[in-house]
Amino acid sequence: MEIGARTWVVPGGHVPFPGHGPEPAFTGFDQLCLLNATERDAEVSLEVFYEDQEPVGPYRLAVGARRIRHVRINDLIDPEAVRLDRPYGCLLRSPVPVVVQFLRQDTRLPGVVALTGTMAHPA
Amino acid sequence: MEIGARTWVVPGGHVPFPGHGPEPAFTGFDQLCLLNATERDAEVSLEVFYEDQEPVGPYRLAVGARRIRHVRINDLIDPEAVRLDRPYGCLLRSPVPVVVQFLRQDTRLPGVVALTGTMAHPA
Amino acid sequence: MEIGARTWVVPGGHVPFPGHGPEPAFTGFDQLCLLNATERDAEVSLEVFYEDQEPVGPYRLAVGARRIRHVRINDLIDPEAVRLDRPYGCLLRSPVPVVVQFLRQDTRLPGVVALTGTMAHPA
Amino acid sequence: MEIGARTWVVPGGHVPFPGHGPEPAFTGFDQLCLLNATERDAEVSLEVFYEDQEPVGPYRLAVGARRIRHVRINDLIDPEAVRLDRPYGCLLRSPVPVVVQFLRQDTRLPGVVALTGTMAHPA
Repeated sequence: MEIGARTWVVPGGHVPFPGHGPEPAFTGFDQLCLLNATERDAEVSLEVFYEDQEPVGPYRLAVGARRIRHVRINDLIDPEAVRLDRPYGCLLRSPVPVVVQFLRQDTRLPGVVALTGTMAHPA
Repeated sequence: MEIGARTWVVPGGHVPFPGHGPEPAFTGFDQLCLLNATERDAEVSLEVFYEDQEPVGPYRLAVGARRIRHVRINDLIDPEAVRLDRPYGCLLRSPVPVVVQFLRQDTRLPGVVALTGTMAHPA
Repeated sequence: MEIGARTWVVPGGHVPFPGHGPEPAFTGFDQLCLLNATERDAEVSLEVFYEDQEPVGPYRLAVGARRIRHVRINDLIDPEAVRLDRPYGCLLRSPVPVVVQFLRQDTRLPGVVALTGTMAHPA
Repeated sequence: MEIGARTWVVPGGHVPFPGHGPEPAFTGFDQLCLLNATERDAEVSLEVFYEDQEPVGPYRLAVGARRIRHVRINDLIDPEAVRLDRPYGCLLRSPVPVVVQFLRQDTRLPGVVALTGTMAHPA
């Protein structure tokens, strides 16, 4: 049985900025959480979409067989950093079925942490 | 391959009011986030449903080919503004497949930000 | 085209208690948000599941044709109130396709509002 | 009719630590909420995936016929405790159809509660 899908979409990206509190625990972030239940290592390809320019990518995210990987969008730098406080969306393509969840941590206000997230859309 | 769907639904709209903090970053809002991975510009049609009156619309949301668009419900004014602090839902129809995510920011309490969201339902 | 499904499930109910702040805006609640895009009024039937007793119901939720309805679980009293601060889940059945979203507002801490939610699962 | 699915996935686990406030109400947690609408008791099997080691499991979660069960990941100890403040994901397999929702409560900051959650992905 296939566990997951090969294409996933998150339209509502926006890394909160600035953050407050000790890093990295309280850094503001958008995060993609991937689970690969297959027996095959996967190099997932991520494309970032914007409101006013062509998509940027591919970013490469390696997720081993029978492993998860939680990646902060803030940490992606190749081919280029995703600018903070700017709307974006993303499209992931995987050679094997995976499952993708999206999480945001917002610490723009000192002493406050806000979270939101959703399962990505399997396309 | 089709990435997304042509019809999306969000039953649980309710723009928080009032908001506190610098605008527009801390304005209370409900937001629709659309991603159009196709090669064709799309004019998405949005219909707003209420508890006690006929639906209002269509609102028109343009989303370019290979683009995202994040739209605050608060900013929609044509054919009429969506009243703040009033329950609503919405139905989106697109001529091409898109993916739609819903996000709420609640700043009704000074010094507090609360977030919630979910992928819209692809119908 | 059918917009939505006739059966929806929310496993993770738990009305936060107590709440703080002016009622009803800041009352702690779990809420079900329904959208009926059909041309037919619907009486949706809700069954509440518990950890340690038989399900209770049906609760009746009327949602007009082309209408939404946002219902706080706290406000359901017939056949019996859903006890606050107690884990529950719910199963909705509708004679017409609808879409269902779940929202929680937690104000157990004075001066703090936390939100979470998700689309219900269409079964 | 089958209500739910037999396989569910949550890629984005991470039990917040430390927590603040009276236990157990304000303990930081990740929670899985299961609803079993069938007429058959189910023993659900949970496997925990990590970034840097082989999956651990099975954990056994009993959910009676016509019952829900809300389980904090923090409370799982057999075959071993899930370490706090460490990324993980999980895969649930049930002999009967169930529905699974994920919820996180974050109380790492004193006097603040943040919530997030999503329906798990039915695989």
